[in-house]
Amino acid sequence: MRILHTEPSADGFSMPAEFSEHYGCILIWPHRRDSWQNGAYAARKAFAELITAISESEKVIVCARYEDYDSARKALPPQVRVVEMSSDDSWARDVAPTFVTNGKEIRGIDWGFNAWGGLHDGLYFPWDKDNKMARKLCDLLDCDTYDKRDFILEGGSIHTDGEGTLLTTEECLLSKGRNPEMSKAEIEQTLCNTLGVKKIIWLKRGIYHDETNGHIDNICAFTAPAEVVLAWTDDKNDPQYEISQECLDILENETDAKGRKIKVHKLPLPEPVHITAEECDGLDDMDGEPTRIPGERLAASYVNFYISNGAVIVPQFGDKNDKTAVEILQKLFPTRNVIGLPHSRDILIGGGNIHCITQQIPSTTCSGNLRIRSLHSLQN
Amino acid sequence: MRILHTEPSADGFSMPAEFSEHYGCILIWPHRRDSWQNGAYAARKAFAELITAISESEKVIVCARYEDYDSARKALPPQVRVVEMSSDDSWARDVAPTFVTNGKEIRGIDWGFNAWGGLHDGLYFPWDKDNKMARKLCDLLDCDTYDKRDFILEGGSIHTDGEGTLLTTEECLLSKGRNPEMSKAEIEQTLCNTLGVKKIIWLKRGIYHDETNGHIDNICAFTAPAEVVLAWTDDKNDPQYEISQECLDILENETDAKGRKIKVHKLPLPEPVHITAEECDGLDDMDGEPTRIPGERLAASYVNFYISNGAVIVPQFGDKNDKTAVEILQKLFPTRNVIGLPHSRDILIGGGNIHCITQQIPSTTCSGNLRIRSLHSLQN
Repeated sequence: MRILHTEPSADGFSMPAEFSEHYGCILIWPHRRDSWQNGAYAARKAFAELITAISESEKVIVCARYEDYDSARKALPPQVRVVEMSSDDSWARDVAPTFVTNGKEIRGIDWGFNAWGGLHDGLYFPWDKDNKMARKLCDLLDCDTYDKRDFILEGGSIHTDGEGTLLTTEECLLSKGRNPEMSKAEIEQTLCNTLGVKKIIWLKRGIYHDETNGHIDNICAFTAPAEVVLAWTDDKNDPQYEISQECLDILENETDAKGRKIKVHKLPLPEPVHITAEECDGLDDMDGEPTRIPGERLAASYVNFYISNGAVIVPQFGDKNDKTAVEILQKLFPTRNVIGLPHSRDILIGGGNIHCITQQIPSTTCSGNLRIRSLHSLQN
Repeated sequence: MRILHTEPSADGFSMPAEFSEHYGCILIWPHRRDSWQNGAYAARKAFAELITAISESEKVIVCARYEDYDSARKALPPQVRVVEMSSDDSWARDVAPTFVTNGKEIRGIDWGFNAWGGLHDGLYFPWDKDNKMARKLCDLLDCDTYDKRDFILEGGSIHTDGEGTLLTTEECLLSKGRNPEMSKAEIEQTLCNTLGVKKIIWLKRGIYHDETNGHIDNICAFTAPAEVVLAWTDDKNDPQYEISQECLDILENETDAKGRKIKVHKLPLPEPVHITAEECDGLDDMDGEPTRIPGERLAASYVNFYISNGAVIVPQFGDKNDKTAVEILQKLFPTRNVIGLPHSRDILIGGGNIHCITQQIPSTTCSGNLRIRSLHSLQN
């Protein structure tokens, strides 16, 4: 693995859309007792269901701490690879590399990670193990890595269409806990240089009470070029209403990098989800303070799905809209099997959902790297 | 990765010779302060020289503890993959899987490991991290693993010719710290079933004062079918003389699995090597006791070489026989470049040498697995 200090876009690399073909997917086996209730037991069950579903159509690599390897290996089917890797928590979307490709090879972006806000409003301390994962994952995959550790970014705060357009939120990317010394224009330039995009569409805010400072991946996602789903509520008394309406107004008045109008599909939100006292009892304190308070609203959203090669896997909350969300997405992804994940609440308690705990590895590219390099060494 | 409980030989798998083509090689970045002097600084330099030489003709995977990843990554060339993996020490030969192949696919044997003798005469306690490495390395390589954890064996205690013959020593395999409840015949049967061999040649003892209970890989190695090198001294006052003579007598009166006489090439030993007081000062105590005592004889031998696809890398001790050993091996390996490793003493202080810190991964096989499986998942 080479550690590169050039710009991916100048090297001919860009970030493909999630709906492009994958080599596989990275996840991290949950363990953190102040994030996941009851010693992460319930979360592991939900993760295992998700991992099994993804592994039906692409390779899955699960990172487990030394002490959790046996538990992960036992819980997961044999086609899944479990590898030892230290982590502070289990949000692969935000700590694994963002992969870019030139169509022949993949490389991984190693962004700086500071637990969603560092000492300003980060969610835990320290975060050094998480911050080191992206580089190690590139090494594991035998692909080169771009050192962008001086720019703080989580994978959950960006979505691309693979055709030059990037979606993000001001709430997150302009937050004081990320890159406060940079102007919006400088951040735009960094995104363009690093991800090979030409146009940034800025929504204002993400889902109400989302502790990531409003990650895009919980509120709005591309389903095809120039098509997005937007988390939606018709309840004007819900603080989410105004946020979603604001997003809609922006999207309907924007065009993408290719000048196309954007088609917005409303994806209804579930009724507000609140954590129970019993659930809070299953969470360890963090630095002597409760991690969550009974009745606290959780940032539940159906937009937090993962697109695998063969499926779209969508959170389910035991809500009347569970089925509607699956039906809407099934129409938007006619070649994939849209699957609801029953135990999504056990992931939500940790603070995110399916998309937050997955990171796709693009195809040709990485599998190509692996094969070409293996052959290369044999030909010597 | 599937965890198999069948017998490799019954499944059509056997262990190839080290001089067969490799996919690559596994090593472990040294860290243990009671094994390696001065915080493993000198050993790391020697390991890096060796790894660089191996990586010129095959893939190299280096396992590093979480805290050592950055040091390994910095010290090693980009074509080497560094992966996080916990270990108690750095003897890949003895803790990485022994790989078997059916010509199309590889699988790894996960032997039990108890630090060369467990509570009887093992060299450190605990050894749980080492014992878990073989299975994790198979998972990393995406190959199935045979669970043989109830049989204690280190890779350094066996050598095969890839044509049905296995070389080992009674001193090690019949030691009280390995499998004392098993008869010699039962151990033979286990080796045949697991490694797909048909004949075991038992030498009595390994190198004098070798703390592994006389591993074969320090005293005798196949250089071709029906050809071995044997560590040799003409000094009748050296306790090694009687041991080497005994080995020679056995080998000259044996035939291999195919009924061939065995050609024995004597490989001279260096003058006895003793650890200095200064070197001992650089080693941490173990459980309050010195690990080594000034003047202690170290088990130096040129037989402890590694055969890579393009080279044979041989220990060097600053001895008059350094050059002779290289010359003898160069004649025996005419298609490979025989290279002396200058800082071998820094490895020897840890208790072994080049062969002990490497484990080859056979070719077709593993690279085949990786490629076939990657493609398989993409075709879904």
